[in-house]
Amino acid sequence: MKPINLWKKAEKIIPGGNGLLSKRPKRFLPKGWPIYFSKAKGINIWDLNGKKYIDFSNMGVGTAILGYSNTFVDNSVNKKIRLGINTTLNCREEYELAKELLKHDKFAQQVKFARGGGEAMAMAIRIARASSDNKKKYKIGFSGYHGWHDWYLAANLKNKKNLNNHLLKNLNPIGIPPNLKNSIIPFKFNDSESFLNLIKKNKKDLCAIVIEGARYQYPNKKFVKVINNSINKHNICLIIDEITSGWRESIGGIYKKFNLKPGIVIYGKALGNGFAISAIVGKKKYMKNVQDTFISSTAWTERVGFQAALSTIKFFKNKKVYQHIIRNGQYVISQWKKLFLKYNLQAKINDFISMPSFEFLYNSKNEYLHTYFTELMLKKGYLSTNNISITYSHKKRDVDKYLKNVDLVLKKISKELKINKLNLKSSVRTMSY
Amino acid sequence: MKPINLWKKAEKIIPGGNGLLSKRPKRFLPKGWPIYFSKAKGINIWDLNGKKYIDFSNMGVGTAILGYSNTFVDNSVNKKIRLGINTTLNCREEYELAKELLKHDKFAQQVKFARGGGEAMAMAIRIARASSDNKKKYKIGFSGYHGWHDWYLAANLKNKKNLNNHLLKNLNPIGIPPNLKNSIIPFKFNDSESFLNLIKKNKKDLCAIVIEGARYQYPNKKFVKVINNSINKHNICLIIDEITSGWRESIGGIYKKFNLKPGIVIYGKALGNGFAISAIVGKKKYMKNVQDTFISSTAWTERVGFQAALSTIKFFKNKKVYQHIIRNGQYVISQWKKLFLKYNLQAKINDFISMPSFEFLYNSKNEYLHTYFTELMLKKGYLSTNNISITYSHKKRDVDKYLKNVDLVLKKISKELKINKLNLKSSVRTMSY
Repeated sequence: MKPINLWKKAEKIIPGGNGLLSKRPKRFLPKGWPIYFSKAKGINIWDLNGKKYIDFSNMGVGTAILGYSNTFVDNSVNKKIRLGINTTLNCREEYELAKELLKHDKFAQQVKFARGGGEAMAMAIRIARASSDNKKKYKIGFSGYHGWHDWYLAANLKNKKNLNNHLLKNLNPIGIPPNLKNSIIPFKFNDSESFLNLIKKNKKDLCAIVIEGARYQYPNKKFVKVINNSINKHNICLIIDEITSGWRESIGGIYKKFNLKPGIVIYGKALGNGFAISAIVGKKKYMKNVQDTFISSTAWTERVGFQAALSTIKFFKNKKVYQHIIRNGQYVISQWKKLFLKYNLQAKINDFISMPSFEFLYNSKNEYLHTYFTELMLKKGYLSTNNISITYSHKKRDVDKYLKNVDLVLKKISKELKINKLNLKSSVRTMSY
Repeated sequence: MKPINLWKKAEKIIPGGNGLLSKRPKRFLPKGWPIYFSKAKGINIWDLNGKKYIDFSNMGVGTAILGYSNTFVDNSVNKKIRLGINTTLNCREEYELAKELLKHDKFAQQVKFARGGGEAMAMAIRIARASSDNKKKYKIGFSGYHGWHDWYLAANLKNKKNLNNHLLKNLNPIGIPPNLKNSIIPFKFNDSESFLNLIKKNKKDLCAIVIEGARYQYPNKKFVKVINNSINKHNICLIIDEITSGWRESIGGIYKKFNLKPGIVIYGKALGNGFAISAIVGKKKYMKNVQDTFISSTAWTERVGFQAALSTIKFFKNKKVYQHIIRNGQYVISQWKKLFLKYNLQAKINDFISMPSFEFLYNSKNEYLHTYFTELMLKKGYLSTNNISITYSHKKRDVDKYLKNVDLVLKKISKELKINKLNLKSSVRTMSY
């Protein structure tokens, strides 16, 4: 069966076709994308017809930090599955994982676990609000993307553009109780003025500030300074969402590199190399409030997630995976720059090393060009868009081979751009929901 | 190490000691409970010191419907793990599972998945609210337990007793935005008057009614009738939480047995035999609104949960597991009745066949007696409280052996009650959070 036909059947019975926007074909290549996999190992993926592709795109939306089907992680998980995963009694891996995380997050004393990232963020917000409930402070200031839950989408109740630069354009927050209006306010990442303005207007009501560790850029020095000062001065909990940025360029959160002073840090995605596990790591003064509200879920105590994370961390540390990723990420960025220059192509290259991305700068043609790039790379056997999640399985020789193909593709694009004869077969990708 | 010492260490770094209230030792036997497992198979659990117990208690809080470490399910999951679980492309198991569920939920046309039960409930509430957003209806009427999320705990903003008969006594809803006050209203299960009173007062604002399929009792005929009539008349979405009651006594939800007319049904727990997977199954008129709001999460697309559910369902259907469970549940209930009578012990026995439970009727002594029962059964090698999740692995010979031990324990309790010389070694269990 053609993958698009299976996908169309899926869209009929699963709204959206699947559970995750970032895996929908329209975001890559509406026509021609393989859509489904049967097998994956390292950076190789096989589609349902057994055709092999090399993944230089998002590698499981950032989850497969060690590469697909890591033998060390998978063997340890399979072993625990044979021994039992979810019983009336507890598994000690939950405690072991908490202990392991606290070794690396020195600011923190306590940990809770969930299975998804959005779910973990909802728990962090509850904890922060519970911690200042006695002061009647419930408001959240945020920048970046933090999941699908009510607390976050409530940002658009006041203004449908509030999530424009963080999630999606003009999102209609339907199904969010209107009474949550004004409970959450956006500010711009790395814009100290925007942040200070938020603080000025809301300092008495803010219980938490939520930021991502990094997305397209790292936090700048001034931004870090004003955040650290403000949260300290006004007794606000700084929640750093490291679901995407954590366990890539450092052992744990990227916040350490920039001296941010979190109250709570959230991990997900890479933490379990693709298995569902997320963690809320925080100061005791916040975390202890878990016991004054009610937070509990059966799925949080199965053993698979804990074991996957324990083994992923062990491998990550032993092999110094972050060093490998930084080295190859820097290499990709430097070579991209050379190639765009070589073919005189206008593009912006973002500096988040472990997740390099570029954007064409041709105004209304940009998404056309991004789609065309993906289409041409796919012909050469690559899953590739304008961003990459670099993993431990992307070796130097793989990167070099990839770059050779990028060279050929950019050459073609450059040539066709000049004579205005671009020949995209697919329709243009769309990043909307 | 003694399990209690490990637990104390866990409590220091994990608020509550773990992620699930129902697995905390204070709810069983504060002193002497094995707390942690190393291995589990069928109905047998081994603690960290290799001591074996037979589980006649909650069997993984209702998850292990086939018994622990079911070879058929685990082999299929292990195989998929070796092939890759979370890639840039989608796994077709997500579609296959949606298709499978719709075979059995004839009222429904669409499905979404999450990993936890509470998470799935939060999604169902979003969908119901989104579906009537254009009519400005956001209120929820509920009975029973439905997870830790804001929408549910908001019930106690108005009155700290609102969750008393559904979750916990006098729960302080700290950390819940106060503006959610009056967004959710309780009613009593099987109390048609209580339900009709709620409808009368709130019919214009209600978007959803949430009930459990069953907990200690089944829905009675009158209750079913007034619910079906009211939701139809006032265009309200009936959400049936089958996280605990589903996939025990029927292929899918227990609602079918009682002719309830749901708009959305939620499955979790038993659906994956212990692996983390949950499902939201509903009418298209509700589910389609997923695409007008924003609902998405990375952890929802890993392959483990889907494969576990597919194999669990296959086994469940092939072996007619529900028939086995109903037969043995009925047998336990009938034999309990005989034994309580034999020893002239006052107790109430609840009629939810697949999860039989009894309650001593000695007023202030009840929890003492429940704890004592657990302590005495533990000495005989059983994990046992006043309720059981019957599974496919509880065979007739296991039940008979268990009942022989119950006989001995009730005999002792009866004798000691008469002379008022009960000799509980542990402190009394507490069901609070």
